[in-house]
Amino acid sequence: MADSISLINNLWVLIAALLVFIMTIAVGFLEMGELGEEYRKSLLKSVLITCSALFFMAFMGFNIAFAPTIGGIIGNPLYTGLFLGGFNGNVPGLLAGVWWSMTSQYFGSGLALGSYFLFETAFAAVTLALVGVVVLKKMRLKAFLLYSAVYFIIIWALPAAWIWNPTGWLYIMGMRDFAGGLVVHGAAGAAGLGIMYQIWREEKKKRLKQSPQVPIKLNPIWLTLAVLLLWIGWFGFNPGSVLAFNNSTMTVVLTTFLAAAAAMFSTLIVGRMKAKQLRRHELLLCVNGILMGLIVITPLAGFVSPLSAIILGILAGPLFIYANLFFSRFKWFTDPIGLLPGHLVGGLFGVLMIAFFTQAPFAAASGNGALSNGILFGGGTVAVGQLGIEVFGIVVVMITVFLLSFVTCVVIAAIMKGITIDYKK
Amino acid sequence: MADSISLINNLWVLIAALLVFIMTIAVGFLEMGELGEEYRKSLLKSVLITCSALFFMAFMGFNIAFAPTIGGIIGNPLYTGLFLGGFNGNVPGLLAGVWWSMTSQYFGSGLALGSYFLFETAFAAVTLALVGVVVLKKMRLKAFLLYSAVYFIIIWALPAAWIWNPTGWLYIMGMRDFAGGLVVHGAAGAAGLGIMYQIWREEKKKRLKQSPQVPIKLNPIWLTLAVLLLWIGWFGFNPGSVLAFNNSTMTVVLTTFLAAAAAMFSTLIVGRMKAKQLRRHELLLCVNGILMGLIVITPLAGFVSPLSAIILGILAGPLFIYANLFFSRFKWFTDPIGLLPGHLVGGLFGVLMIAFFTQAPFAAASGNGALSNGILFGGGTVAVGQLGIEVFGIVVVMITVFLLSFVTCVVIAAIMKGITIDYKK
Amino acid sequence: MADSISLINNLWVLIAALLVFIMTIAVGFLEMGELGEEYRKSLLKSVLITCSALFFMAFMGFNIAFAPTIGGIIGNPLYTGLFLGGFNGNVPGLLAGVWWSMTSQYFGSGLALGSYFLFETAFAAVTLALVGVVVLKKMRLKAFLLYSAVYFIIIWALPAAWIWNPTGWLYIMGMRDFAGGLVVHGAAGAAGLGIMYQIWREEKKKRLKQSPQVPIKLNPIWLTLAVLLLWIGWFGFNPGSVLAFNNSTMTVVLTTFLAAAAAMFSTLIVGRMKAKQLRRHELLLCVNGILMGLIVITPLAGFVSPLSAIILGILAGPLFIYANLFFSRFKWFTDPIGLLPGHLVGGLFGVLMIAFFTQAPFAAASGNGALSNGILFGGGTVAVGQLGIEVFGIVVVMITVFLLSFVTCVVIAAIMKGITIDYKK
Repeated sequence: MADSISLINNLWVLIAALLVFIMTIAVGFLEMGELGEEYRKSLLKSVLITCSALFFMAFMGFNIAFAPTIGGIIGNPLYTGLFLGGFNGNVPGLLAGVWWSMTSQYFGSGLALGSYFLFETAFAAVTLALVGVVVLKKMRLKAFLLYSAVYFIIIWALPAAWIWNPTGWLYIMGMRDFAGGLVVHGAAGAAGLGIMYQIWREEKKKRLKQSPQVPIKLNPIWLTLAVLLLWIGWFGFNPGSVLAFNNSTMTVVLTTFLAAAAAMFSTLIVGRMKAKQLRRHELLLCVNGILMGLIVITPLAGFVSPLSAIILGILAGPLFIYANLFFSRFKWFTDPIGLLPGHLVGGLFGVLMIAFFTQAPFAAASGNGALSNGILFGGGTVAVGQLGIEVFGIVVVMITVFLLSFVTCVVIAAIMKGITIDYKK
Repeated sequence: MADSISLINNLWVLIAALLVFIMTIAVGFLEMGELGEEYRKSLLKSVLITCSALFFMAFMGFNIAFAPTIGGIIGNPLYTGLFLGGFNGNVPGLLAGVWWSMTSQYFGSGLALGSYFLFETAFAAVTLALVGVVVLKKMRLKAFLLYSAVYFIIIWALPAAWIWNPTGWLYIMGMRDFAGGLVVHGAAGAAGLGIMYQIWREEKKKRLKQSPQVPIKLNPIWLTLAVLLLWIGWFGFNPGSVLAFNNSTMTVVLTTFLAAAAAMFSTLIVGRMKAKQLRRHELLLCVNGILMGLIVITPLAGFVSPLSAIILGILAGPLFIYANLFFSRFKWFTDPIGLLPGHLVGGLFGVLMIAFFTQAPFAAASGNGALSNGILFGGGTVAVGQLGIEVFGIVVVMITVFLLSFVTCVVIAAIMKGITIDYKK
Repeated sequence: MADSISLINNLWVLIAALLVFIMTIAVGFLEMGELGEEYRKSLLKSVLITCSALFFMAFMGFNIAFAPTIGGIIGNPLYTGLFLGGFNGNVPGLLAGVWWSMTSQYFGSGLALGSYFLFETAFAAVTLALVGVVVLKKMRLKAFLLYSAVYFIIIWALPAAWIWNPTGWLYIMGMRDFAGGLVVHGAAGAAGLGIMYQIWREEKKKRLKQSPQVPIKLNPIWLTLAVLLLWIGWFGFNPGSVLAFNNSTMTVVLTTFLAAAAAMFSTLIVGRMKAKQLRRHELLLCVNGILMGLIVITPLAGFVSPLSAIILGILAGPLFIYANLFFSRFKWFTDPIGLLPGHLVGGLFGVLMIAFFTQAPFAAASGNGALSNGILFGGGTVAVGQLGIEVFGIVVVMITVFLLSFVTCVVIAAIMKGITIDYKK
């Protein structure tokens, strides 16, 4: 790795990794910002998730996601050996050289094992942090820790192997998801639903008629701090997903931040018109708008122009308001932070928009030369085909992740006699 | 942008941009730190300012400031097209190439549109955040949002076009302002005075005899956090203003941080002697000292030696204490955070000091080879001439910004029937 | 410094310096997190330490530590001139060129004066911040400020000159301490003991039978924020200590973060078994575990493999729990944050482990080619010799720092009539 372009790419991705690691802790502060300072256990959860991600992704999860795949299905779990090679100093890309998928044969940006591992592990951590918002005051901490081990080794790693690994079967089919509308946000929603379902099964056994709700209790200070940290984190999340530092990286900062700004305005305006109970909560509307803009642009930030990013941001506002109104009917949901209306709906919407808003020059610049123009830019039948592939990928991944998550919970419940905490305490 | 030196310059400026973006939010925390946790609306304001800056600078403000100027007066507003080119992937410096003023004909650091836009937009945002401290509990939020649109498109952009654009008339005349003693701090003071004046006109109509004061109520925790964030931000603010990464960039970190350290000591010492009511508020003195040192060094951080930075920092302390005592007489001012004694006085003082403390080797290293030695380093009549240019630039910009700000407020007041909130609420 | 590899190294070390500066403020938040929000003076202390470090390291401390040494004992205090050359623009490595020890004759990474000064000054600041935890509510602020001047000029600088300066006598003897197990953590403990001893002498004169204890009062929010900031800071602390950006830098992030993760788990498990009073404080156990893992890996993060880092992290947990139980017997200690069980024991333990866990390929990659394999990797008698050198270095440095610290306190006490605050207030 003596050439300076590779070094610059590694430096950028390493810095981006640090920014994304902050997001996991930020989710803890977000929970405290929406539910009040008594939800301090959220902070403990964030810290545990970060450490668990480092440990189990190093153990094997990273290989399962990013080592050369076996038949496109699963990365070779022993490619580096356990724990990134254990005591071995000759692991490719560790002390010298480049990770296999970063050679010129594949992505070509010359990333080493260290920077790539840290970047993707930070992604895995923040995905579980999103899943974790649904277990608040519901799931036993030990059960969640056990779940996290399975999550990082297989549940997170599998969709990553399929979509982000250049030998994965969905990647080869043509599926693209720039920074994780499906791999992060959608999959977090599916995994969360899997846990919710098991919790609801246990609650019904206890003859509960409704899942106990966690009341919203805004703390504007922590909310703002959390959004500031998440915003900073997204500075690494999307632009880091170019996996290199070049003009496209900077354009992705633009599309990311412009979508956030536009979504803030549209959420504020639509929210004040449509959601009466939120009319006086301008800060909450602004904050949710920013997050929604950031989520929607995530899967295609590297494929679109600045003005498309603004349009997508403007669409994100009403999407969030209406999704929120829709999901708030189902009182059996435990979703105080809005995982489902926000991350699941916003993430998947963004993935679908790939087939509409992509412009080939932007996609090519971010290393996705296989993508053609979207439907709105004259992509025609090719773009419709892309839409089909994205829909197919969404369906396959959502079902897989939901089932894996649910089965994991069932097994843990069998071992630990239930995953739900005792509400009487 | 294939050469690695340009890539390094872009990477540095992009990171600096992120650090400067944090400063806008930090101003919100600063208000909370000086006025108490009930001033949470400050946080909403910070978030709104950031999004508004991104949106309106992309819309047109960036072109007005940084596109090739029309006769040195104003940048071509349609140089890239609206919104940084809209759907156009061929904008110069976006997906490929370099922004025109960063070619070897001008500044030569090879910055692309993305990194330069984000860096300067962060500057614009934090400038309005400084302006915004005077509207606290005074100006209607909608009026401030409208004001922000005009501010980013024209009020902030015009002085930038004159002084920071290499084809601007003041730049060509020889005016220099390294990181914004006038363009940021001085102009923020002038814009703030324009708003204050309109508010005071409305308050007089309501037969108020004194503008309602916002009482100071220290919260040391938020104050410290705010200063930490501002300090981190200044790590990007001044050194990023080299617009490249080289030895000078690192020297600017030195001058910036040394001025802050020296100013803390001098403010603490002079404050304990002169400002009896502050004697026991060591933290407030330290914090204000650090900020004052950072403000004073801003316009010449790239022109001076480390020891000059320390001397300037030492001068900043008594300057702040005495300016504060001076302005606290005018009770009709609404200035709980000290915009006028701090940013206006400190910023303009620093601009004047350019003509005294500049050393040509330091200025040349930061890309300002046209600057000669200052009066204290044998600059003689050339340095006196530079002093004249700086004074002239200050007068022109302060009057222009004051008038633009005031007229904008008058127009908004006419549309919205007043910009002042109803104090009875 | 026109070559891009040097620029990349400087950019990385400059960013790392910023991250390490954050740690000093983070220690202030850590104190507040363990002792409650009323310990706001901790924040003032952190700010003072940072400014004092910048001022006195620039004055002379940096030269004493990092200029070419006089006989291996002390760096030439006037190598650059006072204050990094004062008004002189021709200081080597300032506006052009490379700091002498970063030329190819020594470390060869091409660092300039600015980035190296800022990185090491941030280290000095955070070391005094660790020392400062023992003076909480005990030492007069003025006395501590005076102490800080002596500390940065000589007490911190001397061990750095011996161990980190390539012409220092311990460095030449073969002593290695990657990122400061001894120079930072161990020495902080020794300096703290020197202050404690003088305070205890003064307290005995006042006929106190026990040093007044500062009661622990957890604030989980500030605790988590502090750990987040420290964790981010360590991202610069250890990987920045490669003093270059290369594959080893990234491997050091891996070893650092994996040790932290493993230590969190082992501290949580051992803590719940052994420390009954902590059983329900999972957050405190996790947080202390993370810190302990980070401390233990610090002196050898650049010398070991990922799996060794995990093993060292696992060992760090019980080490902390038992050290804590051991030191909590001595009620005359004033050590609410655990300086002694954490930083002193953990830091020195890590230094000793160099002789056991080092693997030559990892050490060579981080620029320490002189180190051979440790005892556990077949190092044999050479490794035993290394152990002897490390033990010798520890003894010499600990005694020197303790004596310098104690004598400084005695002198200050003579000048100011005691360094202890009046407890009656």
